[in-house]
Amino acid sequence: MAEQQNTNILHTIDTPQDLRNLPVDQLTQVCGELRQFIIDVLSENPGHLGASLGTVELTVALHKVFNTPYDRIVWDVGHQAYGHKILTGRRDKFHTLRKFGGIGGFPKPEESAYDSFIAGHASNSISAALGMSVASSIKKEDRQVVAVIGDGAMTGGLAFEGLNNAAINPNNLLIILNDNNMAIDNNVGAMSQYLVDITTSQTYNRMRYDIYRGLRKMKLITDNRRGNILRFNNSLKALLTQQHNLFEGFSIRYFGPVDGHDLNYLIKVMNDIKHMEGPKLLHIKTQKGKGFKPAEESATEWHAPGKFDKTTGKRICSNELNQPQLYQDVFGHTLVELAGEDDRIVGITPAMPTGSSMIYMMREFPKRAFDVGIAEGHSVTFSAGLAKEGLIPFCNVYSSFMQRAYDNVIHDVALQNLHMIICLDRSGLVGEDGATHHGVFDLAYFRPIPNITIASPLNEWDLRNLMYTAYKGDSPFVIRYPRGKGEKTDWRNPFEILPVGKGRKLRDGKDIAVLSIGPIGNTVVQAIDKIGEALSVAHYDMIYLKPLDEELLHEIGQQFKCIVTVENGVVAGGLGSAVLEFMADNGYTLRVKRIGVPDAFIEHGSVSELMNLCGMDAQSIAQTILEQKYI
Amino acid sequence: MAEQQNTNILHTIDTPQDLRNLPVDQLTQVCGELRQFIIDVLSENPGHLGASLGTVELTVALHKVFNTPYDRIVWDVGHQAYGHKILTGRRDKFHTLRKFGGIGGFPKPEESAYDSFIAGHASNSISAALGMSVASSIKKEDRQVVAVIGDGAMTGGLAFEGLNNAAINPNNLLIILNDNNMAIDNNVGAMSQYLVDITTSQTYNRMRYDIYRGLRKMKLITDNRRGNILRFNNSLKALLTQQHNLFEGFSIRYFGPVDGHDLNYLIKVMNDIKHMEGPKLLHIKTQKGKGFKPAEESATEWHAPGKFDKTTGKRICSNELNQPQLYQDVFGHTLVELAGEDDRIVGITPAMPTGSSMIYMMREFPKRAFDVGIAEGHSVTFSAGLAKEGLIPFCNVYSSFMQRAYDNVIHDVALQNLHMIICLDRSGLVGEDGATHHGVFDLAYFRPIPNITIASPLNEWDLRNLMYTAYKGDSPFVIRYPRGKGEKTDWRNPFEILPVGKGRKLRDGKDIAVLSIGPIGNTVVQAIDKIGEALSVAHYDMIYLKPLDEELLHEIGQQFKCIVTVENGVVAGGLGSAVLEFMADNGYTLRVKRIGVPDAFIEHGSVSELMNLCGMDAQSIAQTILEQKYI
Repeated sequence: MAEQQNTNILHTIDTPQDLRNLPVDQLTQVCGELRQFIIDVLSENPGHLGASLGTVELTVALHKVFNTPYDRIVWDVGHQAYGHKILTGRRDKFHTLRKFGGIGGFPKPEESAYDSFIAGHASNSISAALGMSVASSIKKEDRQVVAVIGDGAMTGGLAFEGLNNAAINPNNLLIILNDNNMAIDNNVGAMSQYLVDITTSQTYNRMRYDIYRGLRKMKLITDNRRGNILRFNNSLKALLTQQHNLFEGFSIRYFGPVDGHDLNYLIKVMNDIKHMEGPKLLHIKTQKGKGFKPAEESATEWHAPGKFDKTTGKRICSNELNQPQLYQDVFGHTLVELAGEDDRIVGITPAMPTGSSMIYMMREFPKRAFDVGIAEGHSVTFSAGLAKEGLIPFCNVYSSFMQRAYDNVIHDVALQNLHMIICLDRSGLVGEDGATHHGVFDLAYFRPIPNITIASPLNEWDLRNLMYTAYKGDSPFVIRYPRGKGEKTDWRNPFEILPVGKGRKLRDGKDIAVLSIGPIGNTVVQAIDKIGEALSVAHYDMIYLKPLDEELLHEIGQQFKCIVTVENGVVAGGLGSAVLEFMADNGYTLRVKRIGVPDAFIEHGSVSELMNLCGMDAQSIAQTILEQKYI
Repeated sequence: MAEQQNTNILHTIDTPQDLRNLPVDQLTQVCGELRQFIIDVLSENPGHLGASLGTVELTVALHKVFNTPYDRIVWDVGHQAYGHKILTGRRDKFHTLRKFGGIGGFPKPEESAYDSFIAGHASNSISAALGMSVASSIKKEDRQVVAVIGDGAMTGGLAFEGLNNAAINPNNLLIILNDNNMAIDNNVGAMSQYLVDITTSQTYNRMRYDIYRGLRKMKLITDNRRGNILRFNNSLKALLTQQHNLFEGFSIRYFGPVDGHDLNYLIKVMNDIKHMEGPKLLHIKTQKGKGFKPAEESATEWHAPGKFDKTTGKRICSNELNQPQLYQDVFGHTLVELAGEDDRIVGITPAMPTGSSMIYMMREFPKRAFDVGIAEGHSVTFSAGLAKEGLIPFCNVYSSFMQRAYDNVIHDVALQNLHMIICLDRSGLVGEDGATHHGVFDLAYFRPIPNITIASPLNEWDLRNLMYTAYKGDSPFVIRYPRGKGEKTDWRNPFEILPVGKGRKLRDGKDIAVLSIGPIGNTVVQAIDKIGEALSVAHYDMIYLKPLDEELLHEIGQQFKCIVTVENGVVAGGLGSAVLEFMADNGYTLRVKRIGVPDAFIEHGSVSELMNLCGMDAQSIAQTILEQKYI
């Protein structure tokens, strides 16, 4: 393999101890090899390139300075952690990244002792690491705990709650703020601007640190006299700058900003501060995509670029003609279309303008589209405020991230019965991102909430029609749709109302009724085709989970002795459960077989592999339907 | 009524316009009358006394300065808003506060146009008000929007997410930080300390404001030159103080702190800053319980004191002997007992040390008990960090507030299968606090999550045994229990394991089986007693919602043709739904009737009134059971 030539040191590193045994002057070479290794592998096996290229030096420095795995590194969002995986015994498995049965895309404690905490959803590292650090202090262990958080994740409320508590508990927490001025798209909000401002006082901060270091070497200050040091720092600051430091406002000692690609300096700083008592924050500046020119120049595009040519830097896109659109693009273009018709329509995304295709609305109507940063709760409550004043917000949040805004939907939206539309992109099994990202709970967790309508389109036409129907309505309306491509090449149909609470019969049949919701209905169509003449199967697309189509269900309840429900979500509490409730409430005692995601966290893999795993592919569904015949 | 004598001005104020028509020198009297009116009414009709006494002057100033309801006041947690209710047309209904059919304890838009946004859960005001302010700017209206947020609520991550976005959108938002150094208990965290620090530079801030005011009067500065003003402010600050200002770090113009009981000055400041463009924050210092000596002296006790003698200041407690303990106290004392046996046990509460009785643990083991402030998400993820390092956290969060930490439970706890115990106090219908506070969704929203055990005790003995069982386990364990008193006077039973996933038969019967979970099982016992000989009813206490007792359910499925399920939670997705799923999965086609909270937000009232409303009192349950006989 091409990599071998470049990995003469890297291939000797099986554990971080091997790294720690190397002299510092060889570590720069390790960084180079590590960076090349990541580029080589990801060019063939798609993954999150940009973030991990930016943290190469940081990763090497962390494992050099800290005694991992005894010391803990808590990565905030694992996109940063590919280098960490490679250096901690997973180099030879790295080509299996995000593949079914392979290593995961995010740190996973069950995968490795070096992965201290789960890291799929942003902003949890400070709280988790604080807990781990306090535990170490309670257990009187001399353990170091480091949280590595991006500036994007720093805008999440959970990170703030962690910061607010970091100073009050006895702990040694080190927070490393990996600042590349990016979430997945450009980072937004006051914090982001603030981090730019703070950088302008680099001279001051560096001077302060050098003075501190000098005094400490001369043993003029010790950690026992921390109060004095803080006062000393603050006085020095008052002399040198007008800078307000947010973090020191939280009584967290602040160091930086330092160049996150200056390996030797990083190691020196970390060695200096690691034994200081109390919480501290090291602010490093890095460049997303560092070391791979195309990724340096276009960070959003190269966040997760898919396959690419590592020599030319060209992305290998399968731009076949007449392919269906991505659902997200149908959403994005349709929103622009509706917004052109009604200027009350506004769009909101928490840090996913590209991923959700809200970017089209941001371009067309910049004053009516808002990227609020990683802040799902705020995105919903802010939308509720907009709705309360008569605007019509389309708030687009990935299904699994919506779990962060659950109370906001109940308390701020549903309770006030506000007219706003919640679009859940990436619902159902999402594939390679795995357990943290599957949007499989939404049907079950939203169904119990009063006042809200919950729908899912069979295809792009329905998505457009549901958006139109929701816009024409007057109450909270949830539309869930999956990651990836739709069904149709001619997706831009004229708008049509899909009456709320009305499903439709897709196929007649007399032996068994299959009830599905969402695009998995297309898989059911294939399944029934496979069954052929073996069984006469009726197929109903419910479209709405809530309210249910009671007329249709009465018809089904009277006509059939057996029902099969199919949904791309957990079976506990979802469509199948709703159908069972209806049948019980109305005295039908027919059999109901539910197909969906079982009661377990589903791993990563391709969507089709996972659908098969869960018995949700066409073949499995066909088989399950046929089995009902013999019960 | 006694109030009449003191309300010669107050009784003329039917709308805020009446207030605005008064000369400023009469407003101090209005404040006095308003304060006395609140004390008079609450002494007989329990409510949240302390917070509303602290905001009397603020409330009068707001309605004097702003053109309500055209201008919007968004209260963060409605405990502060009693004065607001009285001044906005609800004076004569104020004695119905929190009573069934009466006015609500929190601002409710459906109740009054003056209540701009819902305000039951803390920290939502900045996001909501920002949305409203941005909407006003998009609609080109000249509307002022004011968020009034306590320093306690300011620790919530949602407030931070709002702050982070306040500066980036075009808006006129005014945030009033009502700082009394309290949540319900003493406020905690770096922010809290920070607000104390900031106050010490009062001279500086006042001076800065006075200089600004002078320059503005002389028209030397205008709002168009906001950048200059900010720079001017910052330079002045650099000259005068070493203070870091967090809010200006967020590019939000900061004013204060000012005395929140100095009515004239409040009015002057608000008038000055209301037309300034861009987001601004006015920091006022108030005293919780202001004007009622006992409440001033003991703010936590007088947060919601129940009835009291307004002359002597004595609380009227029904201290009858041999009363059952509160569930929360059984939790609190039991936790101390367990923590004494195992030093791995730690306790965590988000700002509810008194309400959850975590205070006992905080007193006995101060280093192993943590009040993290209003920060539910952090409380769970912080606990997960503690658990990851081998401690055994009991994290106690009110059921309805746990909605704020839903993703934290899925992503940080369940996915890692951590051994920690989540105690949901105030589950089920809570009574007078109403729709925002009913803990009715928890069974439905937690049931779909893999790896977690969900249980509810029939009584105090079970609560203790479940805590013991959970502590002896090795995975996430949820225990839900209600507000209020238990069943037993001799509650301190010796610990016993309640085997996970095992229910029990409480009563034999042959016609119908009733399956219940939690303390509502005691109501079922009464219901069955009422039925007497009319029907032979078996009663099963499931104890565990997850995992279900499959052996018991098979027995029931084989033996009965009809089941009634009873739970104090929403029927969509809860116990009844779980039983339906089991029966369907196992081919039983018996009838199932579900009793629980219907698909609607339930208003406020006494618990017994609400149980009756939902058909969950003994009489209603008896009737529903009997009805099954004739189907």
